[in-house]
Amino acid sequence: PGKKVLIVYAHQEPKSFNGSLLKIAVEELTKQGCSVTVSDLYTMQFEPRATRNDIVGHLHNSEAFNYGVETWEAYKRGGLSKDLVEEQKKVQEADLLIFQFPLFWFNMPAILKGWMDRVLVQGFAYDLSKVYDGGLLQDKLSLFSFTTGGGPEMYSKEGIGGDIRYVLWPMQHGIMHFCGVKVLEPHICYAPENVSEEKRKEMLAAWTQRLKTLWKEEPIDCSPEWYFK
Amino acid sequence: PGKKVLIVYAHQEPKSFNGSLLKIAVEELTKQGCSVTVSDLYTMQFEPRATRNDIVGHLHNSEAFNYGVETWEAYKRGGLSKDLVEEQKKVQEADLLIFQFPLFWFNMPAILKGWMDRVLVQGFAYDLSKVYDGGLLQDKLSLFSFTTGGGPEMYSKEGIGGDIRYVLWPMQHGIMHFCGVKVLEPHICYAPENVSEEKRKEMLAAWTQRLKTLWKEEPIDCSPEWYFK
Repeated sequence: PGKKVLIVYAHQEPKSFNGSLLKIAVEELTKQGCSVTVSDLYTMQFEPRATRNDIVGHLHNSEAFNYGVETWEAYKRGGLSKDLVEEQKKVQEADLLIFQFPLFWFNMPAILKGWMDRVLVQGFAYDLSKVYDGGLLQDKLSLFSFTTGGGPEMYSKEGIGGDIRYVLWPMQHGIMHFCGVKVLEPHICYAPENVSEEKRKEMLAAWTQRLKTLWKEEPIDCSPEWYFK
Repeated sequence: PGKKVLIVYAHQEPKSFNGSLLKIAVEELTKQGCSVTVSDLYTMQFEPRATRNDIVGHLHNSEAFNYGVETWEAYKRGGLSKDLVEEQKKVQEADLLIFQFPLFWFNMPAILKGWMDRVLVQGFAYDLSKVYDGGLLQDKLSLFSFTTGGGPEMYSKEGIGGDIRYVLWPMQHGIMHFCGVKVLEPHICYAPENVSEEKRKEMLAAWTQRLKTLWKEEPIDCSPEWYFK
């Protein structure tokens, strides 16, 4: 109650299963008294490309464009583009970040990857030697909630897709943990397009159920052992 | 000699280290008699977002937009957008795909992830049960060539970033192997921004050197053991 949640959502269709998961999260968290903000990336036509347009005004070094250096410098002087400043404000205010998306090629869709690339700039999310447990976005939680095309048997240690945790490493450890954000257990809905309507309903009910006790959960131990044991 | 190479390049600045690596590859492979095509994604302003715009004309199901289904159907009837058709033609003709990029957040930049999301559609790159060793892009090779921010000590099994191979799993196995493309050893230049000019020159020379005998290389054994042993 009173907690602030930012849901970064990457699906084109409100009637999709991802759309239903989003709706459930907004309703359930609002019901709990949380303040919920949604960044609906496709509707916003969010720009995924990291370019010179992200810097307002002059460049630090116009001889050779270095995105990392330029956004860092721009952040310090308040010269990042408006869409980035708005997303950073939402992140800053949030206690919990939920990422809702369909897994595309063992990773997040490009539009969401672009959100990570452009919003989490140096100075804002991390800094020189302020990384991992020292990252700048401490005291925040994150949760990756996604759907897959393949079933759970594919994403097992013996399956051809390997343990699903292998694909979580770059997202949870490489991005969230790097910025100091704690990570809750991922929420994975396997192959909603290939199961019965009844099973889909069960999957949606399970998400509602999980959200009811979400604030009592402990973050995972974000170490290589969790991912690769 | 006579081989066709497609280099998919994702850096904004020609004067960057990635730009130098691209230049070297184009020059060395051309010198060998290869035919080299470059998809320079930032210069092309390549669209990374997977949207309805990728389908020309009517939708298969306009009630609820499903990107995977719609692009599959559009591929079969020749109804994908022009930019995708052009990229697919380049892929179809290539014997070797080289991806040249700076590692962003333990993965490829969004603009390159968008190329994967949009170009490698069902029907073209894989199909029902035609995946992994049965994928539709067999008899092709791929090579991920990238730069990192952190040094090699960070990306070691004991380092905080974990073994660099962990980040290769979604790219090499989840994308290339999934489509039947064989994978050569990645080419990794660690932290070019943080080393001496002399060391940078050595790294560039090593890339030229590797390219000279590239066609004699055997693909890696793309199994979980290679990544997580």
